[in-house]
Amino acid sequence: MPGALLTDLYELNMAASYLRRGMTEPATFSLFVRTLSHNRGFLVASGLEACLDALETFEFGEDDLAYLRTIGFEERDVDGFRALRFDGEVWAIPEGRVVFADEPLMEVTASLPIAQLVETILLNQVTLHTTVASKAARYRIAAPDAGLVDFAFRRTHGREAAMAVARASAIAGFAATSNVEAARRYGLQAAGTMAHSFVEAFPSEIEAFRAFAQDHPDRTTFLVDTYDTLNGVRAAIDVIRELGLTRGIGVRLDSGDLDHLSREARRLLDDAGLGDAQIFASGGLNEMEVETLVRDGAPVDAFGIGTQMGVSADAPYIDSVYKLVETGGRPVLKLSAGKATAPGAKQVWRGAEGDVLALRDEPPPGEASAPMLEPVMRGGVRIGPAPSLDEMRSRFKTDVTALPAEVRRLIDPERVEVRHSDALRALTTQARDDAILRAGLEP
Amino acid sequence: MPGALLTDLYELNMAASYLRRGMTEPATFSLFVRTLSHNRGFLVASGLEACLDALETFEFGEDDLAYLRTIGFEERDVDGFRALRFDGEVWAIPEGRVVFADEPLMEVTASLPIAQLVETILLNQVTLHTTVASKAARYRIAAPDAGLVDFAFRRTHGREAAMAVARASAIAGFAATSNVEAARRYGLQAAGTMAHSFVEAFPSEIEAFRAFAQDHPDRTTFLVDTYDTLNGVRAAIDVIRELGLTRGIGVRLDSGDLDHLSREARRLLDDAGLGDAQIFASGGLNEMEVETLVRDGAPVDAFGIGTQMGVSADAPYIDSVYKLVETGGRPVLKLSAGKATAPGAKQVWRGAEGDVLALRDEPPPGEASAPMLEPVMRGGVRIGPAPSLDEMRSRFKTDVTALPAEVRRLIDPERVEVRHSDALRALTTQARDDAILRAGLEP
Repeated sequence: MPGALLTDLYELNMAASYLRRGMTEPATFSLFVRTLSHNRGFLVASGLEACLDALETFEFGEDDLAYLRTIGFEERDVDGFRALRFDGEVWAIPEGRVVFADEPLMEVTASLPIAQLVETILLNQVTLHTTVASKAARYRIAAPDAGLVDFAFRRTHGREAAMAVARASAIAGFAATSNVEAARRYGLQAAGTMAHSFVEAFPSEIEAFRAFAQDHPDRTTFLVDTYDTLNGVRAAIDVIRELGLTRGIGVRLDSGDLDHLSREARRLLDDAGLGDAQIFASGGLNEMEVETLVRDGAPVDAFGIGTQMGVSADAPYIDSVYKLVETGGRPVLKLSAGKATAPGAKQVWRGAEGDVLALRDEPPPGEASAPMLEPVMRGGVRIGPAPSLDEMRSRFKTDVTALPAEVRRLIDPERVEVRHSDALRALTTQARDDAILRAGLEP
Repeated sequence: MPGALLTDLYELNMAASYLRRGMTEPATFSLFVRTLSHNRGFLVASGLEACLDALETFEFGEDDLAYLRTIGFEERDVDGFRALRFDGEVWAIPEGRVVFADEPLMEVTASLPIAQLVETILLNQVTLHTTVASKAARYRIAAPDAGLVDFAFRRTHGREAAMAVARASAIAGFAATSNVEAARRYGLQAAGTMAHSFVEAFPSEIEAFRAFAQDHPDRTTFLVDTYDTLNGVRAAIDVIRELGLTRGIGVRLDSGDLDHLSREARRLLDDAGLGDAQIFASGGLNEMEVETLVRDGAPVDAFGIGTQMGVSADAPYIDSVYKLVETGGRPVLKLSAGKATAPGAKQVWRGAEGDVLALRDEPPPGEASAPMLEPVMRGGVRIGPAPSLDEMRSRFKTDVTALPAEVRRLIDPERVEVRHSDALRALTTQARDDAILRAGLEP
């Protein structure tokens, strides 16, 4: 879905003013999350590649410009828009890394009109991907050793969201997705069993199971709860024995008391000599329910995770903003109640003492500190090849493993304080004084 | 985003089995919402046009089929998939109508394999659109007389969701959207003011206001809270007087105590003889906050509504399902714990006595009852032209006005019970007995 009109009208209003007035000085915007949602101790950075795609292809078509004329833009505005391309610089925290409130996920430096115009699409994509990756991470924490499969497609906010959910959950360590297009596009494992309708379409449950096993002998997970779960398990066992199935066999529990049913199913399967058969659980599970099942030792080998993850049901958005921090070499901030920002282009340093938010060109605050933001685009062109999903997954695993347990926990996690460097604090004071003068307020 | 692979793998597994076995009898699936979320007394049907678009264009491309070969489908499966088109029938409740739990939003009758395959995309689209339209309706109820503007784009779950949010909120009576592409595509009013960054990019607030007013004299809403809200209002008044602005002027409050600030802003504007200047409020408002401002008489003329509406933050999904209700002329249901379904193709009758869920071919339950489901596609082709957004908006207005206050209220609304017809109850009993037999259970 390309298109420069995929933006808010106010971006165009502002860009038109900047262009008319020759206000094309370099400006830096910082994209960060102001505060974390309830029960979120950290976020998983995601969405960068989608942003870079949008920046690389940003361009107004003639049909876009024709529409803008009809809603009041003048010919001089249209001429200015026509020439716009994104030719700026982007620094970003790589996808898969664990981040905290106030840490810039991305910083964009470009001529003021274009840097402003891309706000909406950058926020939209980072918000979608980071929200979902951060939710998926919670399931990985809840069930560190179980298989996790993305089943969310039918309830995500559209197809684009479904693709993002498959990708983000893969970064957070999900093993597979039911979304076939996502499996193709991102090189993921596609996974799926059968629906209740399949069982109902046959004269009996056992006939449905037999047909499915004959047709898909290498991936036969029987959905056993259409009529009665444990009877379903017995029917599955009968078919497994009858057809001599050995590879990729299992049963899927999709309703009822999953703790109880998984133990009973395990017992029936083990008694039938089917110790290798897997137990798969699904049915609108949130991460707390998964954690409880795992903690209580329910013998579930893999979980199908749908809606709750796919829309990040308990926290369906992040408090993401894209703020002007410098323009024409001048650091800026706003003073709005409860929404004050920190000025200047930044770097985040991660070290043994925690994270430090600093100005971009400062030296590291400590010997073992490593910078989080990397240059990823210069002159509107990507620097280097896109990292693979495996790299992102590996970054996530490393970062999430390094988190203290109190920050990782699913309920009421501790909040990580990100320290501001001395230079950033000094610049903040200076920019605040300047803002007060500009506003004509008493200091 | 076309593509037959935008589906769950299990749909393909099942369709392959059906095709191999010649199970191509006509099947009917019913798409409905099982239970409403907390604080939802009703839903607003939406997403039908997106579904019909998907059905009309459903087709596997050769690249899709090539991928399916790589994940285990056989040549006979691929040949079967290649020939599939949606050539079935669809009945649906028109977009914009108010609906309740258990009422089919859509019923699809087609050959079993294709009727099954389209499950994922139909659920995905109906869920997205209906979730958001139902949330937008709550803002309309909260502020029946104020202007409402969709500001959600930056935080929706992707671009596709942003387009759906603009459209769904228009159906629910929003006056405009900030999303320029949506305004173009759906013929909506585009609306937008300025960002804090605009104010910060100028040497002073008043210079920013002056520049914006000079550049956009017919749509000048001043964002006044960058530094200090009431000083910002005074600066706006100075610029309005200096430039002699008269049309489309206003101030936007985006932070702080909106009740207090709107009254103070109104007083300053009125004292300056600017009784026509509008007060626009925004800043992460949920519908309860809007309702409180309206009830307490805060002088806000229009609200900019963003994230909370755009992701339906308090209820980001609906409990939507797509269930087989009849195949080869045989009514079916499942018995899963807490997830039992009602069999057969259906009609919903709305009358003075409330809604009745009936079998499709039954006579009306009462003289004044009107059918809710209409045939919208036959032989895979749309019946008649798509209704306009104005028609949908008008349906919504009529239906929501007719709702009892206890059902409309935002907190703890009463739940509407949908009565089942005698014939539906009889068929349910018969199908349940049949299911028990099929499952080999004791009746």
